[in-house]
Amino acid sequence: MVFSQIQRVEPAFWWKGMKNPELQILLYGKNIANSQIELSDNIQIKNIQKVENPNYVFITINTNEINSERFKINQKINNKVVASYNYELKTRKLNSANRESYTSKDVMYLIMPDRFANGDESNDSVPQLTEKANRKDRNGRHGGDLKGIINNLDYLQNLGATTLWLTPVCEDNEPRTTYHGYAQTDLYKIDARYGTNEDYQKLSQELKKRKMKLVMDYVTNHWGASHWLIKDLPTKDWIHWFEGEPNGFKRSNYKTTTQFDTNASDIDKKLALDGWFDTSMPDINQSNPLVLNYLIQNAIWWIEFADLDGYRVDTYPYNDKEAMAKWAKAITDEYPNFNIVGEAWLYTAAQVSAWQKDSKIGEAANYNSNLPSVMDFMLYSELPKALNEKEGWDTGMIKLYNVFTSDFLYPDVNNILVFFENHDTERWNEIFNGNPEAYKLALTLISTVRGIPQIYYGSEIGMRGDKPKLGDGDIRRDFPGGWKNDSQNAFNPATQTKEQKEFYDFTQKILNWRKNNDIIHTGKTKHYLPENGVYVYFRYNEKGSVMVVLNNNEKEQTLNLKRFAESLKGVTKAKDALSGQEILLDANLTVPAKSPLILELK
Amino acid sequence: MVFSQIQRVEPAFWWKGMKNPELQILLYGKNIANSQIELSDNIQIKNIQKVENPNYVFITINTNEINSERFKINQKINNKVVASYNYELKTRKLNSANRESYTSKDVMYLIMPDRFANGDESNDSVPQLTEKANRKDRNGRHGGDLKGIINNLDYLQNLGATTLWLTPVCEDNEPRTTYHGYAQTDLYKIDARYGTNEDYQKLSQELKKRKMKLVMDYVTNHWGASHWLIKDLPTKDWIHWFEGEPNGFKRSNYKTTTQFDTNASDIDKKLALDGWFDTSMPDINQSNPLVLNYLIQNAIWWIEFADLDGYRVDTYPYNDKEAMAKWAKAITDEYPNFNIVGEAWLYTAAQVSAWQKDSKIGEAANYNSNLPSVMDFMLYSELPKALNEKEGWDTGMIKLYNVFTSDFLYPDVNNILVFFENHDTERWNEIFNGNPEAYKLALTLISTVRGIPQIYYGSEIGMRGDKPKLGDGDIRRDFPGGWKNDSQNAFNPATQTKEQKEFYDFTQKILNWRKNNDIIHTGKTKHYLPENGVYVYFRYNEKGSVMVVLNNNEKEQTLNLKRFAESLKGVTKAKDALSGQEILLDANLTVPAKSPLILELK
Repeated sequence: MVFSQIQRVEPAFWWKGMKNPELQILLYGKNIANSQIELSDNIQIKNIQKVENPNYVFITINTNEINSERFKINQKINNKVVASYNYELKTRKLNSANRESYTSKDVMYLIMPDRFANGDESNDSVPQLTEKANRKDRNGRHGGDLKGIINNLDYLQNLGATTLWLTPVCEDNEPRTTYHGYAQTDLYKIDARYGTNEDYQKLSQELKKRKMKLVMDYVTNHWGASHWLIKDLPTKDWIHWFEGEPNGFKRSNYKTTTQFDTNASDIDKKLALDGWFDTSMPDINQSNPLVLNYLIQNAIWWIEFADLDGYRVDTYPYNDKEAMAKWAKAITDEYPNFNIVGEAWLYTAAQVSAWQKDSKIGEAANYNSNLPSVMDFMLYSELPKALNEKEGWDTGMIKLYNVFTSDFLYPDVNNILVFFENHDTERWNEIFNGNPEAYKLALTLISTVRGIPQIYYGSEIGMRGDKPKLGDGDIRRDFPGGWKNDSQNAFNPATQTKEQKEFYDFTQKILNWRKNNDIIHTGKTKHYLPENGVYVYFRYNEKGSVMVVLNNNEKEQTLNLKRFAESLKGVTKAKDALSGQEILLDANLTVPAKSPLILELK
Repeated sequence: MVFSQIQRVEPAFWWKGMKNPELQILLYGKNIANSQIELSDNIQIKNIQKVENPNYVFITINTNEINSERFKINQKINNKVVASYNYELKTRKLNSANRESYTSKDVMYLIMPDRFANGDESNDSVPQLTEKANRKDRNGRHGGDLKGIINNLDYLQNLGATTLWLTPVCEDNEPRTTYHGYAQTDLYKIDARYGTNEDYQKLSQELKKRKMKLVMDYVTNHWGASHWLIKDLPTKDWIHWFEGEPNGFKRSNYKTTTQFDTNASDIDKKLALDGWFDTSMPDINQSNPLVLNYLIQNAIWWIEFADLDGYRVDTYPYNDKEAMAKWAKAITDEYPNFNIVGEAWLYTAAQVSAWQKDSKIGEAANYNSNLPSVMDFMLYSELPKALNEKEGWDTGMIKLYNVFTSDFLYPDVNNILVFFENHDTERWNEIFNGNPEAYKLALTLISTVRGIPQIYYGSEIGMRGDKPKLGDGDIRRDFPGGWKNDSQNAFNPATQTKEQKEFYDFTQKILNWRKNNDIIHTGKTKHYLPENGVYVYFRYNEKGSVMVVLNNNEKEQTLNLKRFAESLKGVTKAKDALSGQEILLDANLTVPAKSPLILELK
């Protein structure tokens, strides 16, 4: 029998003083299960778990029972130590468990690191990773990296972003189309083409210096086919297989309504949950306790290691929902304020809100997700219709109004992500053909309604891209100025084009105005049925009120203010938050065509 | 001061032995509040309530404390009896409280009595009611009546209908457009153009002879402007007024999402709930306890008087929802099995199901309606799209499937009304331009899914009518053969046209097949994602299974049965419920183009 010494240890180190003192360490090496594993200093192993594949051993220890910062994991063959791994239990940062996270006070800025800025050309291609940079290929790697992001943090801070969500930055060593990062091949290592684990820590530190936050994009549902664990599976059921299909692959039917559908057939549900998102993405079996524990520990590891401020979780309803409830609980048990937003891309407010912690709808299906936050896909899907359609009984701005009529379904409506575009959707400015008016209306909306506004890199300069025609690669174009010889630099407001500047200035103004605005962050909402293409709502708390008017009419509109008396409460003066001008709220209020108006009542 | 003797007493009589022994009797007469009211036989009045209008007195008695069947209500002026009303406390029918009601075992047939059959020409016009018969006017009265319905009960029984829902039959003495009956002017009296209260009792008896059921259409939201109580309001707040508007009238904005919308403005909510449905329909204020009690007692009165088997309630979410919860509770406290279906015409399953008793969504809004049943408006609105649209990721038959994915939202999914047309909607057969295939698919669907199927008079003979062009009157055409000199009689299968007969035969077959089918009535559902325009679902219980295939494809489709193994459970033979033929369920199943198939597994 051929043995090899321990080749991998995961997690490679851990921390003392976690609420859950148990740690399960994965040891990997050829036939390692046939060797003995012992710890130094008489430290007891609580459990040694061997699996079908002899190349794995999972040992469980109780970190509370270990007093030293370091101990050895010894591998013995025939009672002789053949390998020894120095395991470290680090000290957590002060108050790590009670870290704050992103909330409705924040504005989230979504970056695809490969497409934002290339701060280090030396890592565009690296020997150990298959796909090399090719900026000419829409679906290839373009060289963007963590250094590029760090270089532009001042830009982002000035813009008014307070939180960065980066699409996955862990290693994705698939042969092709790895720039999006969703086929991860090492969950403990930053992709070398983005930088190192330490670069990621540095990004986090640089953000903290600016009082900004870092959100990691976590993928529980699938890993890359080239993941080392997938290539040498610990257990066959680490992933979902379809017997009789080539490579066990069967594509998901993407119908995740099966999760709560009491009528769903097993075969449809299985295909939804166990089917693969894509050929290169084996579907992970979260219901296997070893897998689930791996995912929980990995998520906690990154929080401690990179001092994270939150997670965004990919393709949430494609996972085993009971396992995910445990996953979210394990993390939020450790970090009670930690925010996690799940991508539950569904088509009704009932279906989406069912995924939020303590949902009554979840309860109707005997489920509590423990997931703090979800994404407002209703707003996303209704917003372009609202602005594009002719006004009618059930068309046009009423569609926006209708979105907010369902707010009572969300157990925590302030903790939902509001957005009009992301890396998977059509570009807003493509839909509206470069029209800054539509952007201003949309941005005003997401900046002033309940929830956490999220924009997508380039939203703020009117970036375009045609998904229906050219595919995902085109909605993920390079940010102009992010590459050394770019013909134009939009990171510098002074060198932005006139069009970019119109988008940028408006964005910067509104996001910075929003920053310290409690009324917007946590106030209540009162909205009024749209009339003539004008939607009016108020955000308010005990300290004050903000009146938001979205005029989608092609013509200037004059509103009779009497209708809003219950919200105006006799106030007759307001400050226009965008122009700074004082506005008299007498009988009428005139709003220019296709424009938003934000009035701070005095 | 001018006095008159008691002119009206409501309810005119009552029953002994109700669970709630309290009875509030309305006494009406000019300045009656200034006279004394006493009861004979030393019976105590618990409470005498006088209101702004001196023409009303409301007296409350405890019927448990009254031993006799009759007593007198004496009106005294200056201690002299000027009038005396003989009040009767009748004996309830045996087991009245535990009466059965309509359930998913039933098929409901909706009739507009003015448009179904004219059994008595002598009451087409009556002196005391304003609007006279004019069959040439699409929006006029045509003369249909209760006798006409009674005459055709054998037809309805043979068809397979088990329950009749008649649009309102109480007096509607508005000047115009009274044929629909929704502007009632006397809630205790059948409209004389339909017959008498005794005719209505007779209809109920004749139905019971055939083991059929009678459902009354109840309107809590509005009465006719010519209602005697409206013309001399007991209290100003008996109805909703809009100050400064002509006659206090303001039209509803019809946005009943305001009921659960935590963001709704008071002004929009008020307009939705208190705004009038139409100029002739003052909006009743159910939150006034006298009004609410009037509505409760009137509803109970009809149950006892006409031996009713259920209610359908009009425009449910336009009412005060707290009051309606009390209304439904009062009725179901008296009659625990009594079914009441509310017309909650809303646009998402969450919004509709929130109105069903014990809804978790209602609970999220701190509300329990106590309303046993709601209508599946989602199915109604998605069904024509499903059959008309080109198949796609989110178009075509997937829309049907999607409807049923939300079943978990309904606390009692068997107790919802399923339908494809009613008196307010476009005629199915107009949408599908006389195509019997579309009808067969739709009827098969509503006859085999969970819930209570409801058809609309004339559905079964392919009646048409163009609502968008010609208005409501056209979807409420006269049933052919219901009038003496009609050129054609569709009540007699022998004289139906070929087109009518195709619709009728199919309807008769499927509804009669459904009658004693427990699996369909109360079985569970398992459905499969549509493929190629074919939607397959199974209904099943411990005794057996029914497989339903709806092929909306223009071509014959062959299904690989392996996909349905979890439902077929090895069964290889089935009976085609429509043809009676035995079908072999081997590897494949072929379904003709644009056809349904119902297979009883053996």
